[in-house]
Amino acid sequence: MKIRAVYPGTFDPVTNGHIDLIQRSAALFDRVIVAVLMNTEKSPLFTVAERVEMLEEVVEGLKNVSVTTFQGLLVDFADQSKATVIVRGIRAVSDYEYELQMALMNRRLSPHVETVFLMPAETYSYLSSRLVKEISQLGGSVRGLVPSAVEERLRFKQQHMVSS
Amino acid sequence: MKIRAVYPGTFDPVTNGHIDLIQRSAALFDRVIVAVLMNTEKSPLFTVAERVEMLEEVVEGLKNVSVTTFQGLLVDFADQSKATVIVRGIRAVSDYEYELQMALMNRRLSPHVETVFLMPAETYSYLSSRLVKEISQLGGSVRGLVPSAVEERLRFKQQHMVSS
Amino acid sequence: MKIRAVYPGTFDPVTNGHIDLIQRSAALFDRVIVAVLMNTEKSPLFTVAERVEMLEEVVEGLKNVSVTTFQGLLVDFADQSKATVIVRGIRAVSDYEYELQMALMNRRLSPHVETVFLMPAETYSYLSSRLVKEISQLGGSVRGLVPSAVEERLRFKQQHMVSS
Amino acid sequence: MKIRAVYPGTFDPVTNGHIDLIQRSAALFDRVIVAVLMNTEKSPLFTVAERVEMLEEVVEGLKNVSVTTFQGLLVDFADQSKATVIVRGIRAVSDYEYELQMALMNRRLSPHVETVFLMPAETYSYLSSRLVKEISQLGGSVRGLVPSAVEERLRFKQQHMVSS
Amino acid sequence: MKIRAVYPGTFDPVTNGHIDLIQRSAALFDRVIVAVLMNTEKSPLFTVAERVEMLEEVVEGLKNVSVTTFQGLLVDFADQSKATVIVRGIRAVSDYEYELQMALMNRRLSPHVETVFLMPAETYSYLSSRLVKEISQLGGSVRGLVPSAVEERLRFKQQHMVSS
Amino acid sequence: MKIRAVYPGTFDPVTNGHIDLIQRSAALFDRVIVAVLMNTEKSPLFTVAERVEMLEEVVEGLKNVSVTTFQGLLVDFADQSKATVIVRGIRAVSDYEYELQMALMNRRLSPHVETVFLMPAETYSYLSSRLVKEISQLGGSVRGLVPSAVEERLRFKQQHMVSS
Repeated sequence: MKIRAVYPGTFDPVTNGHIDLIQRSAALFDRVIVAVLMNTEKSPLFTVAERVEMLEEVVEGLKNVSVTTFQGLLVDFADQSKATVIVRGIRAVSDYEYELQMALMNRRLSPHVETVFLMPAETYSYLSSRLVKEISQLGGSVRGLVPSAVEERLRFKQQHMVSS
Repeated sequence: MKIRAVYPGTFDPVTNGHIDLIQRSAALFDRVIVAVLMNTEKSPLFTVAERVEMLEEVVEGLKNVSVTTFQGLLVDFADQSKATVIVRGIRAVSDYEYELQMALMNRRLSPHVETVFLMPAETYSYLSSRLVKEISQLGGSVRGLVPSAVEERLRFKQQHMVSS
Repeated sequence: MKIRAVYPGTFDPVTNGHIDLIQRSAALFDRVIVAVLMNTEKSPLFTVAERVEMLEEVVEGLKNVSVTTFQGLLVDFADQSKATVIVRGIRAVSDYEYELQMALMNRRLSPHVETVFLMPAETYSYLSSRLVKEISQLGGSVRGLVPSAVEERLRFKQQHMVSS
Repeated sequence: MKIRAVYPGTFDPVTNGHIDLIQRSAALFDRVIVAVLMNTEKSPLFTVAERVEMLEEVVEGLKNVSVTTFQGLLVDFADQSKATVIVRGIRAVSDYEYELQMALMNRRLSPHVETVFLMPAETYSYLSSRLVKEISQLGGSVRGLVPSAVEERLRFKQQHMVSS
Repeated sequence: MKIRAVYPGTFDPVTNGHIDLIQRSAALFDRVIVAVLMNTEKSPLFTVAERVEMLEEVVEGLKNVSVTTFQGLLVDFADQSKATVIVRGIRAVSDYEYELQMALMNRRLSPHVETVFLMPAETYSYLSSRLVKEISQLGGSVRGLVPSAVEERLRFKQQHMVSS
Repeated sequence: MKIRAVYPGTFDPVTNGHIDLIQRSAALFDRVIVAVLMNTEKSPLFTVAERVEMLEEVVEGLKNVSVTTFQGLLVDFADQSKATVIVRGIRAVSDYEYELQMALMNRRLSPHVETVFLMPAETYSYLSSRLVKEISQLGGSVRGLVPSAVEERLRFKQQHMVSS
């Protein structure tokens, strides 16, 4: 059995919680496609290109993991990628309810794609890209929450945003 | 005992989950008033007039159901309509907490109006207007999620938004 | 439209939270049947006869409310009673999840019986028969949590259990 | 990559919700071991042997699924079975919290075993062995909730319990 | 032991629920600093100066409570204020999950600052600044939800917003 | 201000999660009374005397912490101990709902006693006495979950229960 899994997200930026889930997925499935959503409506901190670059640095050592972008319906992207699994992390309750809703809708849209939920390490249970950006913007340290390369880029962004 | 019930919402657009709840309400109460909130602040996909029109098509066969609009406090509208019941659907937890908060506040504002919670069919437990719009916008099919008339209007809107 | 509603429970003993819900139900439906579950397996504090007696005292002033007992499936009892509504109170989350599960199962067993959820006054949001019995057993006062007749009976039970 | 997964449970009796999860697991992993917990303390309706027998009938058509029993720690059983995945179904919130707690503890006890959460079809979101037994005992029909062979055995058990 | 506590928030405007929590905190800790977040990004109804003024009127009788503003990370402000406690109110589940996430992150950023959760009176369990503003804007009465001075200011704001 | 706090529980046995909360409480309040509930109805693994002994070993280094037992209502015990604070840990949602219910009831029974919720370290978010006993009974290691003295006693209990 050869199973391909998609791990979709905004990854603005990738956190250690995401990396934890990517590693767990890589141990379960033959191929893991980390897929950055090209959402044109929101105002992200990092461009899609920057986000892909950071992710690629992070997954370098993982042979069965690749990084790409997608737009449109996630299940359509999964079909095009010959993936039958969508990987999602679950933590808090609100999270969970939303995730379940999306998973049920995705199952309706494409019944042969299965959503699989994995649990991040409890150290990362309170971690999110939004929180990382907020802390960084307020001058706090995000060491240990994101890879060091991301930490530097966050600092760089913040300095340039302050000076503008 | 003659009980009038208000079923309030944005209905942008009406989904099969809403219709399920309207039918259940119509079997419980003597008169059901489907009330479209005229919220001027958000940016809806359909105008209030379009939303009323779609709802009226949908409730055509239900003799004790009417469609109207309202602004201001929901409990004031209920009073003006001589309704003593507010009908709300409940599904997920986050939903539920918010619904409970609103119901408690509405009870404080108008103690003689009772909020009654009904459960949609489990098929619609993951359905929302927001999700329908999102799927439609990304090119997915919403067949079975909304009435066919709404499906066509969504397609029409989408095409005109893309071409603009 | 004539709607009969069943409000089922163990009522061991009836609390002010139950009474709050009975009154709300009596204002919504033409006839409300308070139905005491004859569960032979548990070890209740009050006999079914005592529980019915306390409930009858409590609903005396409510003309469209009656008290009875039932065994077997709740939906079968609803059918035999020509009731199309099951009334349930909702409060906390765990409550709610269990209630939703039961309501979905009951809908499957009998699709024409609708479960309607009502919200007790927030004063009673933390009240349960179990908690009332526990407090009474530990020598605490349950004044304001149960009708005064129930308060006396609880005291009586407690004294006789202590002396035995 | 060859992944073995354990799907543990009491299965007293197996329901259509369990079967749904077994089928989903069989599509994701190379080998699925349905493992009946030999819990000596509770009072089950079916013996472990009966439960295994019913499960074996149910999984007959699924080539990569086997049925067995286990006692002791689940993670120890997983290790002995060379399985690196534990499959669990998730539905309601209370469920979910408990499942998360167990999964975190199991990860601590055996970090190389990953708990993977799958979502049953929404039709089965309110289904549990406990509820099936309760309905059957009260004389209700469990058709569509369990395989027909289980339905017959439940009826047989019920008759013999009633007559005894 | 001398314990200083920070009670942070937006307080746009202060509600009776906030006052309830301030009073409870003042009974627990030697000094309570009510800290208004100077969040420059959102569009508040009241200016920070107005919010501080309303809070100062409200805490006048409480000797160990002071009002101030802060920006940047909350834990940094706590350190500068020599406070080792952050006070937060908890009510609904979604609330709670978010609060827990923030508290865990704050603990990571500053392990010697403890987040302490208090429960408002159940009368205020459905109260929020957002809801107060919404009701006031829709012409509803907020008497009993906010101090009378805040009630007047809300009315004043509303009239001037309508007339503009 | 001199604040005495009660930290009640069954502590059968004390876990590292409990110790974490005791230490946090000791840093917040002038005096912390760890109070073992003498619940005569359940069948504990350790006697009350054993549980007190283990707790006393654990709190030895904490000067403002003492260990005792209580029966009857917790709020009555708090009053007798001149404590105005009840400390409770919160973790998962079900937990939280139950804790909130108890805290509201305790506030009603004794309005001048405040329940204060603290968050254990996330490492202990899945830890409970029940789980510790279960793992130990199934032959698993509880190292790192309980103090080493408790670990030994658990092993001793288990061996004697097996041999009996």
